[in-house]
Amino acid sequence: MHRLTEQDNKTRIEVDWEPIGRRATVAPGMTLLDAAQRAGVELIAVCGGVGACGKCRIRLMQGELTPPTAVEERALSPAELAAGLRLACQARPLGKVKIDIPPTSLSTPQRLQVEGQESEIAVDPVVTPVDVTVVPPTLHDLRADTVRLTDALAAQGVPRPFFGQPVLRDLSEKLRAQNWSVRLALRRRNHGAEAVGVLHPDQALLGLAVDIGTTKMAAYLLDLATGYTLAKAGVMNPQIAFGEDVVSRIAYANHHSEGRQALQARLMESLNALLAQLCREAGVAQTQVVEAVVVGNTAIHHFFAGLPVRQLGESPYIAAASEALSLCACHLGLELASGAQVYLPPNIAGYVGADHVAMLLATEAWQAQRPTIALDIGTNTEISLVVEGRLLSCSCASGPAFEGAHIHAGMRAAPGAVEYVQIVGDEVRLQTIGGKPPVGICGSGILDAVAELRAAGIITATGRLQMSHPRAVPWDGGGAFLLAPASATGNGHDLLITRRDVNEIQLAKGAIRAGIEVLLQEAGLTAQDIDTFIVAGAFGTYLDLESAIRIGMFPQLPLERFKQVGNAAGTGARQMLISAARRRLATQIGERVRYVELTVHPGFTKAYMEAMYL
Amino acid sequence: MHRLTEQDNKTRIEVDWEPIGRRATVAPGMTLLDAAQRAGVELIAVCGGVGACGKCRIRLMQGELTPPTAVEERALSPAELAAGLRLACQARPLGKVKIDIPPTSLSTPQRLQVEGQESEIAVDPVVTPVDVTVVPPTLHDLRADTVRLTDALAAQGVPRPFFGQPVLRDLSEKLRAQNWSVRLALRRRNHGAEAVGVLHPDQALLGLAVDIGTTKMAAYLLDLATGYTLAKAGVMNPQIAFGEDVVSRIAYANHHSEGRQALQARLMESLNALLAQLCREAGVAQTQVVEAVVVGNTAIHHFFAGLPVRQLGESPYIAAASEALSLCACHLGLELASGAQVYLPPNIAGYVGADHVAMLLATEAWQAQRPTIALDIGTNTEISLVVEGRLLSCSCASGPAFEGAHIHAGMRAAPGAVEYVQIVGDEVRLQTIGGKPPVGICGSGILDAVAELRAAGIITATGRLQMSHPRAVPWDGGGAFLLAPASATGNGHDLLITRRDVNEIQLAKGAIRAGIEVLLQEAGLTAQDIDTFIVAGAFGTYLDLESAIRIGMFPQLPLERFKQVGNAAGTGARQMLISAARRRLATQIGERVRYVELTVHPGFTKAYMEAMYL
Repeated sequence: MHRLTEQDNKTRIEVDWEPIGRRATVAPGMTLLDAAQRAGVELIAVCGGVGACGKCRIRLMQGELTPPTAVEERALSPAELAAGLRLACQARPLGKVKIDIPPTSLSTPQRLQVEGQESEIAVDPVVTPVDVTVVPPTLHDLRADTVRLTDALAAQGVPRPFFGQPVLRDLSEKLRAQNWSVRLALRRRNHGAEAVGVLHPDQALLGLAVDIGTTKMAAYLLDLATGYTLAKAGVMNPQIAFGEDVVSRIAYANHHSEGRQALQARLMESLNALLAQLCREAGVAQTQVVEAVVVGNTAIHHFFAGLPVRQLGESPYIAAASEALSLCACHLGLELASGAQVYLPPNIAGYVGADHVAMLLATEAWQAQRPTIALDIGTNTEISLVVEGRLLSCSCASGPAFEGAHIHAGMRAAPGAVEYVQIVGDEVRLQTIGGKPPVGICGSGILDAVAELRAAGIITATGRLQMSHPRAVPWDGGGAFLLAPASATGNGHDLLITRRDVNEIQLAKGAIRAGIEVLLQEAGLTAQDIDTFIVAGAFGTYLDLESAIRIGMFPQLPLERFKQVGNAAGTGARQMLISAARRRLATQIGERVRYVELTVHPGFTKAYMEAMYL
Repeated sequence: MHRLTEQDNKTRIEVDWEPIGRRATVAPGMTLLDAAQRAGVELIAVCGGVGACGKCRIRLMQGELTPPTAVEERALSPAELAAGLRLACQARPLGKVKIDIPPTSLSTPQRLQVEGQESEIAVDPVVTPVDVTVVPPTLHDLRADTVRLTDALAAQGVPRPFFGQPVLRDLSEKLRAQNWSVRLALRRRNHGAEAVGVLHPDQALLGLAVDIGTTKMAAYLLDLATGYTLAKAGVMNPQIAFGEDVVSRIAYANHHSEGRQALQARLMESLNALLAQLCREAGVAQTQVVEAVVVGNTAIHHFFAGLPVRQLGESPYIAAASEALSLCACHLGLELASGAQVYLPPNIAGYVGADHVAMLLATEAWQAQRPTIALDIGTNTEISLVVEGRLLSCSCASGPAFEGAHIHAGMRAAPGAVEYVQIVGDEVRLQTIGGKPPVGICGSGILDAVAELRAAGIITATGRLQMSHPRAVPWDGGGAFLLAPASATGNGHDLLITRRDVNEIQLAKGAIRAGIEVLLQEAGLTAQDIDTFIVAGAFGTYLDLESAIRIGMFPQLPLERFKQVGNAAGTGARQMLISAARRRLATQIGERVRYVELTVHPGFTKAYMEAMYL
């Protein structure tokens, strides 16, 4: 191990990496890309740092870098250069610098760590604290604890709140243990308020926001008074054990006695563990969490809430409930403050869920003045078109290919997964997560690969592989493309893209594009009319826009019309956690949406057939 | 076995026994007492049918009896004879007759079977049915089930009810299973209504009323539309396993981890079994039970509701909550309709519970125009004095002696228990439940025994036994009275009343009398001012009033001022089940009561000391 000398320390240059908040020193003369790699900051550099891919864009916030190279002047526009944008593989720090990394330049895992920034909205939570001290009882003052408390509240001008059984269960012991002083968490109701937690006057009121995806879930712990996120974490959705997509989970629930209950219990178990982890990290008690907001697609929503799912799995795919719900955490088995409620925003339809509403809310897409598409790509892709105050939404079964499933060498975005591909002549350049030897390919990688294969003429518009290509190998009828030979992979197997993989991507991207086209038809627009194209969700954040356009998943629009917004559903959930006004907006959004059922739409089949071509 | 001939059948006379609804034939010339004994109708006849005790009073409703005998003319007043009252041991039917048995003439078990008649109040339950049929969904009508239902309700002019998670859990499947027609059970709220059950349009809405005593519980299943009781049953309170009185149960809860939860769970288990039994008897489904009312003393109330009890067991004995509560049955573990609520009327104080409020309500004592005492004797005895619109209440620790506990030969009112005693010279006459040889003595028996021993001069005013009496036997210091020798008992042991037993009764009756006297003092009255003296509860119904007066438990008032009203708390619970107005009254009663804490009352100790004399 090389031990830094004092001299080293003096000459080394400090680099601050934002927004991930990492600080490291580098030797003079090193590029920012080298500096990043040594500091464990995973910048995208498909070309390996030779200036060929243009992916490693960063922005100088403070300090000085070497002047732009000829490579940079080709890769970046004058406006971009003026705004401080640079390529990390070209620029070298001349002194202490502070660097901002756009999400699109970060590899998947790191990007997910920092996605979903807080937006600035007024903090106005439905649960607020009231501190109250009561006189202790004596043999001459025998008022019950609730009466004593209510009388003290009345003296402060606070009307009597409702006390439910779960709060009454705790109240007497808390009053005595805390020397007759408590902080009550009062939840606003249509008429009056309900006590949902009994805390110590020193304890802050907290909230939990959760975005439950079919595959992953993200949870955020917020301070309800400040709106500040205290901790966040993501884990896999444990229901994967019951089926990779919601359709197979519904089948599980239908075919097993107590299957629905098992799915719900498994989810709660994971959420409780996740919550406990967040609370440990933030150094708070779980009983301080007095409110939660949970978003997910409609099936996930039903599984979470313990609602029946059989009718969601059969045509015409009907939700048990679509309005916003406030449910007792204790009915659900979620271990929050004793009387805490869980707010579930409205669903739009059987396959357009509250997560989509949350996304429309967080991105402000719902009130766009000019034609706007907002979509969230997943196993189901929900798409909304906002035009002249109207909201049209649909859902398309894009399948799990972009999550790495149903792909021969598919894998989740984990170390060793190919995430970017460039084909230059006979050379195939790969970038893997963590820079490890490739062992599989994740969603963005397969998207890139198909786009590059098509651009290089190795596959046709119908997805057929040119078997004359030197890297084409026979495989199960349709052949396969050798992305990396066994000698170069991390698992000793050839890394292949099969003809079937290409077809999976065609089906997935075709469904998404067809959904977009049907919504445009409904509104009497064409793709070129789209002013803003919002791509939300994890995969949507790390996919390569140019590749998505090249394979026809997204329409051919100038890149600046696209916005990759990260986990906007999670951001929407957090907004609704800290703001009653945002909840009212969510309900309005839910009511304003006109749902377009693709399976019965006259234009869908044709659009789908056309959209499958590459 | 004697087989009836046709001739026998022709000459036999039919007797209808009311209100227990038993019909039997008797041979001509038989007394009604004989007829009753052969028909399994347990009339009280302490003297064995010789006309000496005057207990076997019945009333002729239809038909003709032999004329009154000289014995009857001594035992009954001319007014009583004119009203149809007779002694069953004297009267013989002359043809088909219908006989009414006053509760006071029935032995304990049979009396409990028929106690607590329905009172006539307007039926106005808080839960009412709405039948609704919705249009089935199609791919062109994708409204969620709740929206579909709400729209159909709106078309009938019914505003959107609130749907909680437990109801949403069932709704979708019920709609589909019942061809899109449901009967919704809607519970009135301050603002709007809440759906508490989803039934079939053929199913009646039912309610459950429960009176939970420290020792016994009685449950009633009612039709909410008619107010009619469909089934009723009583069982022991299973919490007895954790302690005979509430103080020891609170100690159990305090000293065992999860002790409170165990007590609650045990109670729910029994109640669920009891409910299942009632539903089987009535041929209905448990899911039809859409509302419940539960009354009990404050500790029982807390155990039932899962509220903390530690503070109830320590001075100053504070209730966690005293206001009326509506709690989710599913929070409590009571297996009713999915969203059913359990209404708990207000408590008055730590030891005056909702059962007492229910009793004041059912007897109308709370609005008596003239000074009225209403009490419910149990391990704790709650007493109210109503005078000039004021309600004064207290609670006295009368102990479990009247429930057969802490008495040497004490037992519950079960077959073989001595329930009435007469001492005539050296003869001791006993009546046991079921006419079995005596094996112990129940509450009314020990009360009678002490009164008779005192009247016969066998014990002194301080409870000392005259050891010169031929039936006095040495026993553990204070001696004992031989009620029945081993040769005459059912278990081969001497049946004794010990000096200690007499002292237990002195303490119990002294506490009750002292409570009465303190309330009278507070109101500036004397016992003679009492216009009506209401005695409620099981023991209160079968105790002998004259004995209770003779030992000084009750003041010396003309017998006609007393009313033995049976399980009035259970009747009050049933009233609140079928009438929202009765609930409002109960709340008013709770608010109007002034609770008098005996332990700190300056007049209590003196009153108690005096009241202990026999």
